[in-house]
Amino acid sequence: MSQARSSLLLSSALLGAFAFASTAHADEGMWTFDHLPKAALQKAYGFTPDARWIQHVVQSSARLAEGCSASFVSGDGLVMTNHHCANSCLAALSDKDHDYFRDGFYTRDLADERQCPGMELDRLDTMKDVSDPVAEATRGKQGAAYSAALQEVESKLTKDCIGGDDEHWRCDMVPLYHGGQTALYRYRRYKDVRVVMAPEQGIAFFGGDPDNFDYPRYDIDLSMLRVYEGGKPVRTPFLQFDPNGPKADDLVFTSGNPGRTQRGLPASALAFQRDVANPAIISALTLREGMLWQYSRESAEHEKQAEDALFSIQNGIKSYSGTQAALQSGDIVSRRVKEDTALQAWIDADPARRAAYGQPFRTVDKAIALEKDLFSRNLAIGMVFRGFLDNVMTLVEGAHERQKPDAKRHAGYHDAQLGEIETALAAKEPFYPDLETASLALSLTSLRQIAGADDPLVRLTLGKEAPDALAASLIKGTKLSDPAARLALWKGGLQAIKASTDPLVVFARRIYPSYTALHDKMRDEVSAPLHKAQGDIARARFAQAKAEGRLDALYPDATFSPRLSYGTVKGWRKNGVDVAPFTDFAGMYGHATGAEPFALPKRWLDAKTRLPLSTHLDFVSTNDIVGGNSGSPVLNREGKAVGLIFDGNLPSLAGDLYYDISNNRAVATDTSAIITALKLVYNEENLANELTNGHR
Amino acid sequence: MSQARSSLLLSSALLGAFAFASTAHADEGMWTFDHLPKAALQKAYGFTPDARWIQHVVQSSARLAEGCSASFVSGDGLVMTNHHCANSCLAALSDKDHDYFRDGFYTRDLADERQCPGMELDRLDTMKDVSDPVAEATRGKQGAAYSAALQEVESKLTKDCIGGDDEHWRCDMVPLYHGGQTALYRYRRYKDVRVVMAPEQGIAFFGGDPDNFDYPRYDIDLSMLRVYEGGKPVRTPFLQFDPNGPKADDLVFTSGNPGRTQRGLPASALAFQRDVANPAIISALTLREGMLWQYSRESAEHEKQAEDALFSIQNGIKSYSGTQAALQSGDIVSRRVKEDTALQAWIDADPARRAAYGQPFRTVDKAIALEKDLFSRNLAIGMVFRGFLDNVMTLVEGAHERQKPDAKRHAGYHDAQLGEIETALAAKEPFYPDLETASLALSLTSLRQIAGADDPLVRLTLGKEAPDALAASLIKGTKLSDPAARLALWKGGLQAIKASTDPLVVFARRIYPSYTALHDKMRDEVSAPLHKAQGDIARARFAQAKAEGRLDALYPDATFSPRLSYGTVKGWRKNGVDVAPFTDFAGMYGHATGAEPFALPKRWLDAKTRLPLSTHLDFVSTNDIVGGNSGSPVLNREGKAVGLIFDGNLPSLAGDLYYDISNNRAVATDTSAIITALKLVYNEENLANELTNGHR
Repeated sequence: MSQARSSLLLSSALLGAFAFASTAHADEGMWTFDHLPKAALQKAYGFTPDARWIQHVVQSSARLAEGCSASFVSGDGLVMTNHHCANSCLAALSDKDHDYFRDGFYTRDLADERQCPGMELDRLDTMKDVSDPVAEATRGKQGAAYSAALQEVESKLTKDCIGGDDEHWRCDMVPLYHGGQTALYRYRRYKDVRVVMAPEQGIAFFGGDPDNFDYPRYDIDLSMLRVYEGGKPVRTPFLQFDPNGPKADDLVFTSGNPGRTQRGLPASALAFQRDVANPAIISALTLREGMLWQYSRESAEHEKQAEDALFSIQNGIKSYSGTQAALQSGDIVSRRVKEDTALQAWIDADPARRAAYGQPFRTVDKAIALEKDLFSRNLAIGMVFRGFLDNVMTLVEGAHERQKPDAKRHAGYHDAQLGEIETALAAKEPFYPDLETASLALSLTSLRQIAGADDPLVRLTLGKEAPDALAASLIKGTKLSDPAARLALWKGGLQAIKASTDPLVVFARRIYPSYTALHDKMRDEVSAPLHKAQGDIARARFAQAKAEGRLDALYPDATFSPRLSYGTVKGWRKNGVDVAPFTDFAGMYGHATGAEPFALPKRWLDAKTRLPLSTHLDFVSTNDIVGGNSGSPVLNREGKAVGLIFDGNLPSLAGDLYYDISNNRAVATDTSAIITALKLVYNEENLANELTNGHR
Repeated sequence: MSQARSSLLLSSALLGAFAFASTAHADEGMWTFDHLPKAALQKAYGFTPDARWIQHVVQSSARLAEGCSASFVSGDGLVMTNHHCANSCLAALSDKDHDYFRDGFYTRDLADERQCPGMELDRLDTMKDVSDPVAEATRGKQGAAYSAALQEVESKLTKDCIGGDDEHWRCDMVPLYHGGQTALYRYRRYKDVRVVMAPEQGIAFFGGDPDNFDYPRYDIDLSMLRVYEGGKPVRTPFLQFDPNGPKADDLVFTSGNPGRTQRGLPASALAFQRDVANPAIISALTLREGMLWQYSRESAEHEKQAEDALFSIQNGIKSYSGTQAALQSGDIVSRRVKEDTALQAWIDADPARRAAYGQPFRTVDKAIALEKDLFSRNLAIGMVFRGFLDNVMTLVEGAHERQKPDAKRHAGYHDAQLGEIETALAAKEPFYPDLETASLALSLTSLRQIAGADDPLVRLTLGKEAPDALAASLIKGTKLSDPAARLALWKGGLQAIKASTDPLVVFARRIYPSYTALHDKMRDEVSAPLHKAQGDIARARFAQAKAEGRLDALYPDATFSPRLSYGTVKGWRKNGVDVAPFTDFAGMYGHATGAEPFALPKRWLDAKTRLPLSTHLDFVSTNDIVGGNSGSPVLNREGKAVGLIFDGNLPSLAGDLYYDISNNRAVATDTSAIITALKLVYNEENLANELTNGHR
């Protein structure tokens, strides 16, 4: 399924997943709600969250399936998240007379609220430790056998958990501490999510890409949604809205779904990212950025078509470049070499440990060596089947996978997940033939460039055609822009796929055997051994931490599941200059030039005289967040909402790999700005009252 | 002045110049003609070039001012170089009815030959050692004082050398072994260079970017020029054309102008390239590639406009990426750390050496630390004043520089160089407003992205305008696309610049003070100390080599001046497979798909039945070449032309930093293919006869 990327949306999984346990320093950590660092919190802040506080926060928090976090902020199903988390919804609802993305979306009554196509919101219901059955099922297995066993047990557990009602429930197996522990999370699913209010893109993303991942910022990156069930707003616990926002040095929490961190990556895997993966990914994204940039300049219509994709790409580039800068600083890799060596020495020092953990770093090195050979081609063919074409490969792959018993299928195609796939295939997404053609032609060109004209996969993909001509004929001829056509193929299964004459299906069908063979190779010879070795490493770290009495300070890597982080509202020192924690409306007006992306929307220019200019607008805090935390509420110790996470500063981009309290900062919109804007800029008195009163 | 980049054209100097002495291994080295490795040649190949052989090769070789190499191949001024070295000429001569670049250029009579606007060819006349006066002038000086002294002595020496006749002579001070030796090269200048014949781009660059820097290749990357003086073809020594080409394992030479190598770069400078410079440059070029790629798709006209630039950019990316891959392999940097440490230890071991060479690596580290801070902004502003806009900044900068005494001016603006500037400003180059606008808008967007919206230089550049709007108004309003307008401003000097209301001049004038201050800082605090320290390092290496009796094996880094390299026609082993040294016409037809860039021109399809298909087409050899060698003749031991260098293989891209005989290969078109094609494909019997007979 296609997945947008933006500020703190969850990054697409271009890299194999690594997850480790890390030992936290001050304010570091993305803590599961059943393992909060209570002692550290009490010691540093004199605060201990009790069971009610915790349950209230869990039940008021939510996750958007497309890669964002959110929170309930009224008893009538009102949800707060980022503007950029509702981009695709606003685009989908727009038509030739309305550009809700650019101009904002406003309602007076429930009746005006409109459903976001394909949007799903999940709310954590229960967490269960399933480490034992998983360990049981995979014991002694390796490689493909290990993958299959893991898939089998995952399939069984999630199926049982959903209990046949996948309309209302979603269950995810969540590997924590990389198999040191495995949890099963059950979410309440909501599929009727409507948009209530969104400001203009011009204020939601004021400063645009130049300011993105930077600070000071002057954005209200907000959208308000409402969750319905049976045609009525749902009633759930919710966060009380504090219209005053936080103060400097306040203890604050974020409750969100950090997507993925790799805080214990072995040195050779870090070096692989630095030397192979990141440069290749940055290049692929940058090439696409240049293409989309020029495409946008061709007409107002093209600009609108490409806006979302361009934004996502630019975000991705900053994100990978930030990580790359951290890796190239050299310190992390060489530090990790020492840590790895020390851990292996700890293992080697004891025969029982040697038997339990073996030589995992050697396994990692071997897998990485193979990944080096496969990575570029895999990335290049992956770029071909992105976005709209991802649907097509999903149809072909899904048809094959559904022929297999559930336990033998590729990840993503288990029975419990088929509903999701169908929902995504059925979603009416905008389809722009020009953009799809350009995008596919570029991917095909790059594939040939990277793998070479004589590569078998390239020959299979291009035949004797030029990338441009092939892309044009495929996109022109396909009927798959119609959700009904996709659904029919999905429902028709392998027979329908085999019989289809849709040029894109024919194309995907031709490539599928090589495509899937490459993926299987990656899975069986790279991901699975890495996963296994890293499990051994993580368990060894666990055991070492336990032996040394450090278990309480350990938190698991992020897995796009609910986590709490804590920190302080605090600026930092950038290039020798102090950066203040808050910005205000006055600063926003001073930062405006009138030219995009520094042009304020008309409503804001008109409202200037009405606004108290010293109202706090955005703030930074030391909370440890990463992509996936977009839309997380910022809470104070009373559990009230005081802010809305929407970004991190530049140094925070290294957060995938490590947390550095000296400069890593989370960026949030202040609740005082939200309330003031709703009242004085947007005349949304009702909505403001719902927030402050907790009900409509 | 703007400078195209392609296969082995000289790369633009985006990085500060470093030049060292290296100790050569088998077939390694780019040797000055007055210091050939005669003993090594005799030992390895039983061949010693005598004085006549050497003089003949020197006098038959040439350099194109835009960054290529060439050779005289008939007594009537006929010159052989690459097709890609004549790209801008062919584009400039084309009109709406003729696309000489795409379709080729053919003549029957001298009268049909057409002058290439702005093209200059230089032929080496004399080489003189000026080490003593340079050492004298710079003794004991450092920083800005060192730069000024160097400029002053350079200015005086070149002025004396030209003797007031800069119409016929050009003199360059050539630092060899980084100041271990300094030479003064005097060239005979030819400014009337006409195009005689060029094949279609489709055969000159068959396989296009996908095949570029790869092998096997199937290209005839040829253009034939003729040099005139006083309206008549010049008579010079020339290389006899061998219509049979070379055989496998033959000893072959290349005589050309390798642009720049950095084979003794200190480890910290290598790490800087790897971690800062190369990633930033690759990103900047890749972004532009994406933009140009999409621009090309907009219309046939846009495709033609962007073709040259796109090709250059793609070349640049491969080149930097190849170097980057070599650097990231990790071996070179760590090896260099040891070499640096060893050299410093050798210095430290003796008080006289300590006094002579000091702590040059410490100086390098300090300069690199500052360069790290300045690099991105400097690159980004440099991208703004590229291509057409380079003319504008040249006008503004030149007006200011000419106010100063010759010796105090910035490099490039000495009296002896003003003629060149004027020639370039007066050259009628194609001007495409759409392309210039897109290019400038992208550069401005990137500048803001990289330096940040609040950076003073960014504020100065953009004011309150958006990059797109600013670029559009500047390009729309300027009259500087007219060479006459540029010349008038140039001749009008500072007064004319100050009085100009041309929007581009106003723009460049506004930025000039910051621009020049940044450049001065780079020069005085980065380049000059680096230059100085590296001179110390090179002299220390010299002294050490001398002490150890290894001087004969030392060659200087490339400096875009005439050099001889030697090697063998030989394939290599790529990914476990042997690559044969020769390709032939049969292989070419087999590689053709009919779709660009694998579509053969119609003439070639038609000629298939007439051609002996086993005729050699391209070949590889172990010759040590880099960018700037484009168009170099390949000679056999009789001094006859057997090939035409046009590329290197992928591993050769690391040649800037080191030479590895196991896989570094030069790629050339075989003279047998040239003769056969002229006769049987192009009906250019006269030209073929001129080549084989040595005269018209």
